Amino acid sequence: MNTFEVKAFGTDAPTADLKEIQINRREITAKDIEIEILFCGVCHSDLHTARNDWGGTVYPAVPGHEIVGKITKVGKDVTKLKVGDFAAVGCLVDSCGECSSCKADLEQYCQNGFVGTYNGKDKHLHMQTFGGYSEKVVVDEHFVLKVPANLDLAATAPLLCAGITTWSPLRYWKVGPHSKVAVVGLGGLGHMAIKLAKGLGAEVSLFSRSPEKTQDALDLGADSVIISTDDHEMKVVNGKFDLIIDTVPYVHDLNPYISTLKHSGTLVLVGYLGPLEPILNTVPLVLGRKSISGSLIGGIAETQEMLDFCGEHNIVSEIEIINMQNINEAYERMLKSDVRYRFVIDMASLKG
Amino acid sequence: MNTFEVKAFGTDAPTADLKEIQINRREITAKDIEIEILFCGVCHSDLHTARNDWGGTVYPAVPGHEIVGKITKVGKDVTKLKVGDFAAVGCLVDSCGECSSCKADLEQYCQNGFVGTYNGKDKHLHMQTFGGYSEKVVVDEHFVLKVPANLDLAATAPLLCAGITTWSPLRYWKVGPHSKVAVVGLGGLGHMAIKLAKGLGAEVSLFSRSPEKTQDALDLGADSVIISTDDHEMKVVNGKFDLIIDTVPYVHDLNPYISTLKHSGTLVLVGYLGPLEPILNTVPLVLGRKSISGSLIGGIAETQEMLDFCGEHNIVSEIEIINMQNINEAYERMLKSDVRYRFVIDMASLKG
Repeated sequence: MNTFEVKAFGTDAPTADLKEIQINRREITAKDIEIEILFCGVCHSDLHTARNDWGGTVYPAVPGHEIVGKITKVGKDVTKLKVGDFAAVGCLVDSCGECSSCKADLEQYCQNGFVGTYNGKDKHLHMQTFGGYSEKVVVDEHFVLKVPANLDLAATAPLLCAGITTWSPLRYWKVGPHSKVAVVGLGGLGHMAIKLAKGLGAEVSLFSRSPEKTQDALDLGADSVIISTDDHEMKVVNGKFDLIIDTVPYVHDLNPYISTLKHSGTLVLVGYLGPLEPILNTVPLVLGRKSISGSLIGGIAETQEMLDFCGEHNIVSEIEIINMQNINEAYERMLKSDVRYRFVIDMASLKG
Repeated sequence: MNTFEVKAFGTDAPTADLKEIQINRREITAKDIEIEILFCGVCHSDLHTARNDWGGTVYPAVPGHEIVGKITKVGKDVTKLKVGDFAAVGCLVDSCGECSSCKADLEQYCQNGFVGTYNGKDKHLHMQTFGGYSEKVVVDEHFVLKVPANLDLAATAPLLCAGITTWSPLRYWKVGPHSKVAVVGLGGLGHMAIKLAKGLGAEVSLFSRSPEKTQDALDLGADSVIISTDDHEMKVVNGKFDLIIDTVPYVHDLNPYISTLKHSGTLVLVGYLGPLEPILNTVPLVLGRKSISGSLIGGIAETQEMLDFCGEHNIVSEIEIINMQNINEAYERMLKSDVRYRFVIDMASLKG
């Protein structure tokens, strides 16, 4: 398979800084789209993969799965988009296309394993996939999204992961104008959950441990903020919520939040992967038909739906634009939650 | 309020045997139905309440919430049933009727607390409610069910708790001909779960630790039995089930069962109340949008729906009929799981 070299930012080892490297992209096949990357959001998963926090990272690793750019080439069978169009790529670049999940537009639950945008198993080049911290990317048209013309391109990038990750559960659990939704955690995912749930017409509350986040949450559209360490405030919302989107990426006690669900309500984890400590108690689950669930990004059709919805409602992420060369510093700031609410790399900086 | 005395079987203390006692029932009000109890099923909750295993038992305690009988009196405003009709009463005899749960026919999730058939707070007599181990019961018509004429009365009694407890999650999670359902545990609830899921057209499997239960499960209608201690058998069903009804009443590891859920599948606990040990891992929940949930009996309309469905499909419980005087021995046998699959008391024995 023919390839071409592009500049990228990647790392050779868990403890090494990211630096400029050269990687190969495949020449487009009949169904492929080549995109010049204009902006790439910086997700916590980027950092975890670069540093091998989850194990399994293959080096060199090039992170980035919140990609927005301009189409530079299309294969002869491509019908979805054309050269010159703005386009986006999220967390997935391939899946089997054959299993019942793929056929139900749930590529993220592909029974044969989807191919992640980075550190996935590239079926064409038989090596790891490389993400959006690079000049260009080549992706099968099925996994390329259309970008609404009215949205700011840089602020659109985080919709491809933070946006769809919170949109998918809001849609799956049928959030609408009569829903009461709570969000746990106000970061990249949490701030998108507030905006999207409000866009869908729900009453939205934020659970936070930090009173200083109250004004920010209200500015983002939340109707109220509940300080989760305040027993009185927690009691007031007992049995209130239809859906809780829990974006916290580290282990934390779910039991107090379960009490704030209405009967038949669901707490859905989108941020934390690991053992649930302290131990869950089943009593409120059984006595109130409450559920604890999880959700992983979203399918391609649902991602397009989310982008179109954001276009109609003029919803984008709150971002801080950085240069590619500042990525290592940005990672350190992310670890201190010092970002409102997402870093986005201006990929023009990689050319300089 | 006028009352009348009836014979009952109850207990005065957690460690005392049940014995014949006298209790008072209210004279019927305008909306009440008086029922001569013919059969009463014996539920594990009866034993737990008699022995104060959950705390909160008020003595004397008269258990029994799987009640079938014949109507002997009706209040002047009763329209649902008439004297001479067969009727049934389950786990609920009252609720607020005003909250959104009650208005949605979900009396079991009444936000002001439903009134249990025994050890509940009787709004009329301002004392504990007494259950079905007695000659007669007086219940508001809203909480009285119609019994299909074709069903065996004794074998219908367990439908009022074991039946509805498994029916409600089967319906809520939309089980039908294309569903793959698994049941954990083959007792009073488990055997009804198999029969009802089969009745709804699902493919049904039993998870069991005991190979000797295989033939029984197949005889009840299960399509297959998976020995949960056999790693190979568990691997074969990886990612298979849409819904798992977990009827096991003691703490047990849910993690192996979660692996057998398909994406977007749910494991629903109907038997175990308490802390979930060993600790749950969220990875399969997030990566497969899987849920852990609970479910409590069912609402009155849903209970009638279940009884009507059982009438149409000729579904009843497998039972062993006992006399009231043998209840203490029956409790001991239940503790050893020595019952296939439900004891039902022939209440004629109380008259003798």
